[in-house]
Amino acid sequence: MSLEKWPKIDVKADRSYPVFLGVSLEELGEFLHLQFEDVEHILIISHQVVADVYLDRLQKGLLDYRVNQIIVPAGEQEKSLERISQLTRAALECETDRKTLVIALGGGVIGDLAGFFASVFMRGIRLIQVPTTLLAQVDSSVGGKVAVNHPLGKNIIGAFYPPLAVWTDFSTLDSLPWEEVENGLAESIKHALIADRSLFEFFENEEERIKEREKSIWSEMVVRSSAVKVNIVSQDEREQGVRALLNLGHSFGHALETEMNYRGVTHGQGVSIGIAAASHLANAKGLMTIAEVDRIKQLLNRFGLPIMIPGQDPRALLERMQADKKNQGGRKILILPKGIGQAVVSRECTDQEILAAWKQVIS
Amino acid sequence: MSLEKWPKIDVKADRSYPVFLGVSLEELGEFLHLQFEDVEHILIISHQVVADVYLDRLQKGLLDYRVNQIIVPAGEQEKSLERISQLTRAALECETDRKTLVIALGGGVIGDLAGFFASVFMRGIRLIQVPTTLLAQVDSSVGGKVAVNHPLGKNIIGAFYPPLAVWTDFSTLDSLPWEEVENGLAESIKHALIADRSLFEFFENEEERIKEREKSIWSEMVVRSSAVKVNIVSQDEREQGVRALLNLGHSFGHALETEMNYRGVTHGQGVSIGIAAASHLANAKGLMTIAEVDRIKQLLNRFGLPIMIPGQDPRALLERMQADKKNQGGRKILILPKGIGQAVVSRECTDQEILAAWKQVIS
Ligand SMILES: NC(=O)c1ccc[n+]([C@@H]2O[C@H](COP(=O)([O-])OP(=O)(O)OC[C@H]3O[C@@H](n4cnc5c(N)ncnc54)[C@H](O)[C@@H]3O)[C@@H](O)[C@H]2O)c1
Ligand SMILES: NC(=O)c1ccc[n+]([C@@H]2O[C@H](COP(=O)([O-])OP(=O)(O)OC[C@H]3O[C@@H](n4cnc5c(N)ncnc54)[C@H](O)[C@@H]3O)[C@@H](O)[C@H]2O)c1
Repeated sequence: MSLEKWPKIDVKADRSYPVFLGVSLEELGEFLHLQFEDVEHILIISHQVVADVYLDRLQKGLLDYRVNQIIVPAGEQEKSLERISQLTRAALECETDRKTLVIALGGGVIGDLAGFFASVFMRGIRLIQVPTTLLAQVDSSVGGKVAVNHPLGKNIIGAFYPPLAVWTDFSTLDSLPWEEVENGLAESIKHALIADRSLFEFFENEEERIKEREKSIWSEMVVRSSAVKVNIVSQDEREQGVRALLNLGHSFGHALETEMNYRGVTHGQGVSIGIAAASHLANAKGLMTIAEVDRIKQLLNRFGLPIMIPGQDPRALLERMQADKKNQGGRKILILPKGIGQAVVSRECTDQEILAAWKQVIS
Repeated sequence: MSLEKWPKIDVKADRSYPVFLGVSLEELGEFLHLQFEDVEHILIISHQVVADVYLDRLQKGLLDYRVNQIIVPAGEQEKSLERISQLTRAALECETDRKTLVIALGGGVIGDLAGFFASVFMRGIRLIQVPTTLLAQVDSSVGGKVAVNHPLGKNIIGAFYPPLAVWTDFSTLDSLPWEEVENGLAESIKHALIADRSLFEFFENEEERIKEREKSIWSEMVVRSSAVKVNIVSQDEREQGVRALLNLGHSFGHALETEMNYRGVTHGQGVSIGIAAASHLANAKGLMTIAEVDRIKQLLNRFGLPIMIPGQDPRALLERMQADKKNQGGRKILILPKGIGQAVVSRECTDQEILAAWKQVIS
């Protein structure tokens, strides 16, 4: 037996690791047997709704191991230091030690929480990401960023902790509600926009089949979109350069989310509106035509993603952007698309220009 | 100006870093200027008793920076996730960002706490260790282990996070109470025992001058003892091999500390008794003569470190060793001295033999 049979792309970084795409939950155990001889104990961290549907399938392959599960309530608020403390207690109670392997089975919340837990428990134990949302499959499971929130800010406490492998079973997306699909689509379209023009065209051409959740098209979408992330992270794991491009739409989106107190706007919706605003700003800076701006907005719109937000105060949103943790020395650092399929880091946008961009997306 | 003027030893690891030995607090700013062009904000984390005496001297060199201090109450109980959360709040309130540099000014508690904070704040910000206890100077500031405690165990939550530099000013030890000196001496003698026979002889020969805190002798003691740690960490930063030898005396000592509920025995005292027990066990295993055991016990004793503990139950202590996080698959892993100046990892000690060793140190 060999590892060859599972399709994968490698993240080539300080420590390289495989991102398996289109494998099955049942086979993870076989992979672990082949790859890690000294694993005896496995700790699965997941949500109830995910565990209910997928835990059995995963466990089928893990019969030779001592396996424990910790089920965490769903929701962003679970990404907290208090939860890390409780996970630590639960882990010690089931005799987790330095040789335990953690499986993060779930969306981005589980990936970030279980990932951060694995990074700090006894100074770091082994971690496999098993992403079950579109967002987690195309984005958050790859790249090693893990974190919890603090009352004063999202993802303030965290680490760079790449998993030993990412194990992506497309079939777990079957049960994903459409509103969660949207969150992943926003990031996927963002990936296309910053780095892969033909993926952008794929979204334009395959709208219908994507909406119908046609299996072969979804596989292609996840593979191509993950590939963008893998490729960027391979060039710049620590976000000292090109990785920053992944923040396209996020400075705007994050300002909106915080201004609205995370109510009435999902993360994907914030990113979508943020992409629209960043595109207008790019147009003002001569980086794209207004026709391209419209084309981008149209694509987002066709997938049900918003490109306008009613009744917000642009000045208040500008204020919020002041607090962005990516800013340095008072200057706002923004990611702007450059045509379709490229993006740039800009430090040159004036508050006036940013305000104007906000006004374009406020109805 | 150049870096050459400050004496140092380099830790040669994944990322190498200098351990400056015998430099002054006032000069740290000059070093930072030379080494890190983009530092604007410095966050000093310290204890009140340390800050009262040394903060002014440190700040003299930091006039060009925006400097904030966070003062943490003294004591092991401060190494907690709750304190990490509070540090995060305080740091955000003084506009700490990714480019901030953290200075950990204090003993091992501050080094571990501020070090872990720096490792997780915004996924890791810059860190300089400025150790002010003997233990921190010869041991904890070097090697990158940082951690906080959990109600169920010491140092359970942590990271490997080497500092950018260790800045050791011997004069900070002037104010250190003798009982704190003892904690450092226990580790220093341990260093001698596992790796430097001539350092062991130095302790034997210089007892008087060490006790009188003669400056030149203390400098030599700190330099030689740190060098042992630097050397071991350079060979094995992640504790996958030789670094484990630094745990000599600690499995026994830790069992004793937990059995006594951390009351009536300091960490240094636990280590000292642990070294005595491990030496007896080494003798039983044919690794050293009984004359050598006596020589070790005598040295510890001459520095006021205990080698016997009254009234303990050896069986209960053996039980406690069962829970050691270094054990693997039920087998006890112990570090044993091999003569004076070497040590080995042993997996072959029976419970019977360990019991017998305990009995040798219980009066
Ligand atoms: N680490 C990174 O690089 C990175 C990148 C982007 C986002 N994130 C983080 O990801 C998080 C958002 O992740 P998310 O969008 O996956 O949200 P999520 O993890 O909260 O999952 C959304 C919901 O879907 C449920 N769910 C998960 N898988 C399911 C399935 N297969 N079928 C049915 N329901 C399922 C979950 O229980 C949850 O209620 C945020 O905390 C964000 O900060 C991290
Ligand atoms: N990271 C590592 O590799 C490592 C190694 C060994 C120990 N440790 C940790 O180190 C901690 C113990 O460190 P410690 O022994 O330095 O204790 P400590 O940090 O608690 O300091 C002891 C006391 O001395 C005071 N103090 C510090 N500097 C002083 C000075 N110059 N003058 C007067 N008083 C001063 C402190 O305020 C404190 O009350 C433990 O938490 C242990 O887990 C870590």
